[in-house]
Amino acid sequence: MSVVKVGLLGLGTVGGGVVKTIRAQQEKLSARLGRRIEIVKALVRDTRKQRAVQVEPSLLTTRFADVLESDVDIVVEVMGGVEPTYDYVRALIQKGCHVVTANKELLAKRGAELVELANRHGVHLAYEASVAGGIPILGVLRQFLRTNDIAEVRGILNGTTNFILSQMEEAQLPYADVLKRAQELGYAEADPRADVEGWDALYKLYILAQLVFGESLPLSAIERQGIADLSQGHIRLAKELGYRIKLLAQARREDGGLHLSVRPTLVPLGHPLARIRDAYNAVQVEGSLVGDLLFTGKGAGELPTASAVVEDLAFLLTQPFTPHPAWRERPTAVPSSRLSSGLDFCFLEGTEARVTPEQVLLFLERAGVAVRRLTVQYDPGSVLRVGLLAAGLREEHAELLGRDFGLQARLYPVLEAADDRGAVEGTVGW
Amino acid sequence: MSVVKVGLLGLGTVGGGVVKTIRAQQEKLSARLGRRIEIVKALVRDTRKQRAVQVEPSLLTTRFADVLESDVDIVVEVMGGVEPTYDYVRALIQKGCHVVTANKELLAKRGAELVELANRHGVHLAYEASVAGGIPILGVLRQFLRTNDIAEVRGILNGTTNFILSQMEEAQLPYADVLKRAQELGYAEADPRADVEGWDALYKLYILAQLVFGESLPLSAIERQGIADLSQGHIRLAKELGYRIKLLAQARREDGGLHLSVRPTLVPLGHPLARIRDAYNAVQVEGSLVGDLLFTGKGAGELPTASAVVEDLAFLLTQPFTPHPAWRERPTAVPSSRLSSGLDFCFLEGTEARVTPEQVLLFLERAGVAVRRLTVQYDPGSVLRVGLLAAGLREEHAELLGRDFGLQARLYPVLEAADDRGAVEGTVGW
Repeated sequence: MSVVKVGLLGLGTVGGGVVKTIRAQQEKLSARLGRRIEIVKALVRDTRKQRAVQVEPSLLTTRFADVLESDVDIVVEVMGGVEPTYDYVRALIQKGCHVVTANKELLAKRGAELVELANRHGVHLAYEASVAGGIPILGVLRQFLRTNDIAEVRGILNGTTNFILSQMEEAQLPYADVLKRAQELGYAEADPRADVEGWDALYKLYILAQLVFGESLPLSAIERQGIADLSQGHIRLAKELGYRIKLLAQARREDGGLHLSVRPTLVPLGHPLARIRDAYNAVQVEGSLVGDLLFTGKGAGELPTASAVVEDLAFLLTQPFTPHPAWRERPTAVPSSRLSSGLDFCFLEGTEARVTPEQVLLFLERAGVAVRRLTVQYDPGSVLRVGLLAAGLREEHAELLGRDFGLQARLYPVLEAADDRGAVEGTVGW
Repeated sequence: MSVVKVGLLGLGTVGGGVVKTIRAQQEKLSARLGRRIEIVKALVRDTRKQRAVQVEPSLLTTRFADVLESDVDIVVEVMGGVEPTYDYVRALIQKGCHVVTANKELLAKRGAELVELANRHGVHLAYEASVAGGIPILGVLRQFLRTNDIAEVRGILNGTTNFILSQMEEAQLPYADVLKRAQELGYAEADPRADVEGWDALYKLYILAQLVFGESLPLSAIERQGIADLSQGHIRLAKELGYRIKLLAQARREDGGLHLSVRPTLVPLGHPLARIRDAYNAVQVEGSLVGDLLFTGKGAGELPTASAVVEDLAFLLTQPFTPHPAWRERPTAVPSSRLSSGLDFCFLEGTEARVTPEQVLLFLERAGVAVRRLTVQYDPGSVLRVGLLAAGLREEHAELLGRDFGLQARLYPVLEAADDRGAVEGTVGW
């Protein structure tokens, strides 16, 4: 039986999972492919390091040249990062090697070049594992796009931040403690910024936009707001108003414009996306024909990601090459306020001595802001916290509230009115 | 540009949707396929009938021979039924024609022969549209199966019955009134038996089992219970105990045995499947690697189904032929009580004069049945209704309660204990 020679760039958690999966499914895969999958080289930082998965020492190398020269048919890129990863992947494509990658940062930053290069050399570039881990959302969207027009995709694309927000609410612990816990559990990196500042979700959203719309905004033009400054106060006041705060990624095409954003967003408690707990991901999409669909599953982790990688690998081996549509960037965004329900949530924090809720309301009324609902919370330490839902709120109002009353004010979008019956009843309706 | 000649068997609701979809997406499809899709013949009952979609009269025929002789490349079978459909499809396969069908009954009753025949003649047999309409569940499962082992699939596979059960609860109307309403809205057929007796869900479950396990029980060996005898009493008492009644289809392989069932099942109110409303479908699956996933969307309707048909059509035109695994039937089932939580729900109805709840409890205690929770309801008309959750309930107990106390007793499985926190919080956890 002929052999498919696979090279690995990186042999960390996901890389180890890929090796385990290929071994565990070898028989099934060979039967389907008519070929044996064999790992012939693995690029690692340290060949002597102890690993969860046992690998023949002769396969390990610290020199990329060894991978390039072992003329592999397919490379699985799970080393992450952009440099030197991009140069490695480019060199392999130029040698006619198919590429399977789980690297969302690489795709979001250099995807356009890689797609163009892969097309030019007639090799597959597969990246199902880069978005929503075990949820095969890219394949599903490709399938819909054969017949459907898709106007919007949104979801919870980062498991780490969703875990942190769930834990903050359920264990009622401050952000810092929960982050520490997430790091101990391996849900968060030692340097958590890529997750908690929203970069990871942003990269995934960019990839989704390229797939669904054939274009995206440049990364720098996508609204991004992290979760690091969310407190128990935010979570409690939002909940009193009927919402749960989720780090929501949204992409919509409208009036020929693109709206893309990754922001902590108030989701009605009854909405399906509000019920996604822990490290789960969810993607909601509406097709012109199929209507609205919701996909929920584990967004990350060794095995779900490895599974997606090996599915890609097995799939491309059965597929004739077809060129990818080029990835394009559109320089200007349409303000993504348009993505929200028209309502915004304003979280205010300050010293009771200096301001009363009445003053805040009076100020907003004069500023022409229509406050729909409001909830107030006093702390022993005489700290005043106000959460309000209003239409017509703008950043300038937040600034003025800060200047005139010494309040810290922060705005967050609201997905839907919490009284939306459909949502409360838990349909997938928009 | 070369042409793909498509024949239609049937031009009803879904057939009309297929025509509309092909026309609306013609440009996109031609670009992807490099060929124009052209409908060359459509088999109908009555060529003069008024139709929602305008079709060149010369394309319409009442003679199957006309379709066969117009040597089509692909036939889209949306006429439904088994006879004469099976003979038509077989004749077309034997002519080397690819088949796309949405006909779950045909597949469940003659799928084994059709798969074998298609393999022998090297033609595609595509049927994504036959299960869960717009949710591309078959494609997703095929993808997982490349690398995952799947032990269980379950879901809400029939939109009509889910609509009826949702409406009975929300509008608090009796079954008959809601069924009438569903028929007026086009959610239910004039003859609703295929839906309300569980046949439609049963056929879909059979197809899922063939795909996931490579085998199924014979249709006659699959436990099936319809919804026609469910009353407001059932719904209310179940809800008081923390559950919602759903027509749940479940397939599990265990200890080398298969458990398949379609039954009204008590689902905890907090469980994601309890929140699927109206005509929506949902499929829950657990992969050995990807973990648990939930897919939700519209299960039927002209456009979702037509979309799935055209997706299949476009997909198979880009695929090399690969034989399907043979469909097998395994004669014996393992009792599907094993699918439930170990608890059962017993709904009792009778005349207060003849029996008290205490007598029922005493009887069950003596019979060795452990009653966990119980709720009682007296009607003005002195009708007594009892709903109880118990372990160790068997049909014979129901019969004895009928004989000794003149009670109508009916048993229903319970998916999970309602206090399962994960479920209540709405994760997809099992």
